[in-house]
Amino acid sequence: MEKVFASIITIGDELLIGQVVDTNSAWIAQELNKNGISLKHRVAVGDVWDDIWAALDEESKHASLVIITGGLGPTADDITKPLLCKYFGGKMVVDQPTLEHVTKIFNRLNRPMIERNAKQAEVPDVCTVLKNERGTAPGMQFKKDGTIFISLPGVPHEMKWIMENQFIPQIPGLFKTGFIEHRTLLTYGIGESFLADLIRDIEESLPEHIKLAYLPNYGIVRLRLTSFGVDKKLQEEEIDQYFQSLKERVKAFLVTDEDIPMELFIAKLLKEKNETLSTAESCTGGNIARMITAHAGSSAYYKGTVVSYDNDVKRNVLHVKDETLRLTGAVSEETVTQMAGSVREIMQTDYSVAVSGIMGPGGGSEEKPVGLVWMAVANKDRVVTKQFQFRYDRARNIEMTSYNALNLLRIFINENR
Amino acid sequence: MEKVFASIITIGDELLIGQVVDTNSAWIAQELNKNGISLKHRVAVGDVWDDIWAALDEESKHASLVIITGGLGPTADDITKPLLCKYFGGKMVVDQPTLEHVTKIFNRLNRPMIERNAKQAEVPDVCTVLKNERGTAPGMQFKKDGTIFISLPGVPHEMKWIMENQFIPQIPGLFKTGFIEHRTLLTYGIGESFLADLIRDIEESLPEHIKLAYLPNYGIVRLRLTSFGVDKKLQEEEIDQYFQSLKERVKAFLVTDEDIPMELFIAKLLKEKNETLSTAESCTGGNIARMITAHAGSSAYYKGTVVSYDNDVKRNVLHVKDETLRLTGAVSEETVTQMAGSVREIMQTDYSVAVSGIMGPGGGSEEKPVGLVWMAVANKDRVVTKQFQFRYDRARNIEMTSYNALNLLRIFINENR
Repeated sequence: MEKVFASIITIGDELLIGQVVDTNSAWIAQELNKNGISLKHRVAVGDVWDDIWAALDEESKHASLVIITGGLGPTADDITKPLLCKYFGGKMVVDQPTLEHVTKIFNRLNRPMIERNAKQAEVPDVCTVLKNERGTAPGMQFKKDGTIFISLPGVPHEMKWIMENQFIPQIPGLFKTGFIEHRTLLTYGIGESFLADLIRDIEESLPEHIKLAYLPNYGIVRLRLTSFGVDKKLQEEEIDQYFQSLKERVKAFLVTDEDIPMELFIAKLLKEKNETLSTAESCTGGNIARMITAHAGSSAYYKGTVVSYDNDVKRNVLHVKDETLRLTGAVSEETVTQMAGSVREIMQTDYSVAVSGIMGPGGGSEEKPVGLVWMAVANKDRVVTKQFQFRYDRARNIEMTSYNALNLLRIFINENR
Repeated sequence: MEKVFASIITIGDELLIGQVVDTNSAWIAQELNKNGISLKHRVAVGDVWDDIWAALDEESKHASLVIITGGLGPTADDITKPLLCKYFGGKMVVDQPTLEHVTKIFNRLNRPMIERNAKQAEVPDVCTVLKNERGTAPGMQFKKDGTIFISLPGVPHEMKWIMENQFIPQIPGLFKTGFIEHRTLLTYGIGESFLADLIRDIEESLPEHIKLAYLPNYGIVRLRLTSFGVDKKLQEEEIDQYFQSLKERVKAFLVTDEDIPMELFIAKLLKEKNETLSTAESCTGGNIARMITAHAGSSAYYKGTVVSYDNDVKRNVLHVKDETLRLTGAVSEETVTQMAGSVREIMQTDYSVAVSGIMGPGGGSEEKPVGLVWMAVANKDRVVTKQFQFRYDRARNIEMTSYNALNLLRIFINENR
């Protein structure tokens, strides 16, 4: 076994001026990890010949695998393909299967194909083509001084398709990888520092090849153990033993010992009992619904939401009493209680969640400042409510409200079991 | 004037195993650009002493400003602060104002303060502290061999607060920057290659210091001109002239000449005439509502959504006829037409948008494959519908549906003007 290190080079001015957030790297990192490869370095450079060249030199010094994304589109600001051709000492040739594939795409779209499009089928003669079923720009694989280089388009779904179908299956043949094992648990209701004190002796007892990391976010702290080694079975037994100790120690704060987001944990609880959920959102504007429905299969337990951004909708669709809105306002315990009750009846679900708050930057008052949120969770027997006062910007207030509403639901469901 | 280059170093294993997507870098890049600084390089490294040290050495070779984010939390996996202390040749001392600030936060939260928390107030004596009003970890500013280094916590809202309030105001005093001007326009309905052919002569006539970039996404192609220079006024006049030529050339496909997302462009159209919008979402699960309400002030034109993930909700809340659902199904022109009509009446808005489709990976059939979407836009006088067949994964199908629904609405509103 050798410890296999990889590096990602992301190419494109759009990343350096901040017009685009790089989501590709996180996905690639996860996939490499699953396949026993550690990402050591990630670099982003602009569409600048010398910078790309220098990055290829620099990253290949420390990595056995260099993954390059971006810079393969059909327009003139792309210099990546000619650069790769020169870097690896080849000349451009037409790849016949790619040309047929590009032609087929244009025929299907019923669009004329112009020279620029045909050029996408040109590749350096020193690469192996990685077929791209999702688009016109093919992936390319090179080898130089023992390092494997792959170049992929930056469009996420194209990049993913090529990785999954063309490159990842090659990994066992290309590298002698070890195994990387992760175990992750989620805690709620305890700060990072207190958690560290609580598990100090376990952390100190960890062997060199097992690392512990704290990942706090949204009031949740995720604890992650990572083990590197050669013997998958031994390694699993060992990490499971430490993981078990951790779980027992943090029991009072444990949400789940699976590395899944809160909304999938709730999905699991609901599916166990064949139960259903609906939501009524005001200040989160549909974000809770979006989080839940981002996952395939959510229609089995989730029926829908009413986003009542306007008070008329609270009155007319969610039947919040006019008197309540007048006397206690839209952001109040009474309002969210009525919202939760109504949506549960309207959508005929076992559980419902309702939120109403002031996300800012405007709309606050002395009595009801920005960041004030009321939320309610209901089933047929009871309703619980909770008030929060967040102190963040709009985007984070929305996220914190969404996560905390899901967490309140989690606690509520567990109390019913 | 000197052209000022910056580099970002992001620290944290969570970035290299892909547990977290780096959104900080895009934000920092935008802010630097506004202040005349070009980002040249972005690097992510793990919590590994040698890798962080090497990154500091390497990045400071090419950049006058190095921004380091992450690695400042209170737990044991953090090695950044001791490393910075050694790198810049200082020793750790307690920063009294930070200690008072941390103590105040714990008092406010009514939580006991433990040693780990107090340690957050320790900083290298060779740094200038950048106050962090949003959290307990202070920012730090160093100087070495003419390069400025700043170290910031990785939590986005804390990082942003320090940048905005503590660092950005210093930029004019620290660097002699030039000006960076961007002009961006959005096109719809023309592919990247065809656009490039359409504007080829304009692109070829651009002077050395003005760059053109193509940024395609969601069927929209964004064209961006960027100019670097010293004389802000001259530069603006020059770039505006090229931008004007571009706008005229792409007129038939132009969405807007402002660099704003589609949902804010629609907000502008609606606010001009004091008009309102509601939505009825099935397959997008609240994503359209979330995109609209992510922006402050959206309650002025947006009333809400009904997410009818379940057919019962389509029947009971959106009054889609049972017969329609039985005969044509949930994903059909008739269903979205009824959804759009009902939600507009229920929420009493000028316009409404409805979508229904199959996002995958499951749920498709021969007759209605994954990726099939029907959408409708309505006002009091008319309804338009459109069918799409996307061929992506679930996440991208949801995004494509959301963007195309907003685009259909944009065209519809413009036809009424």
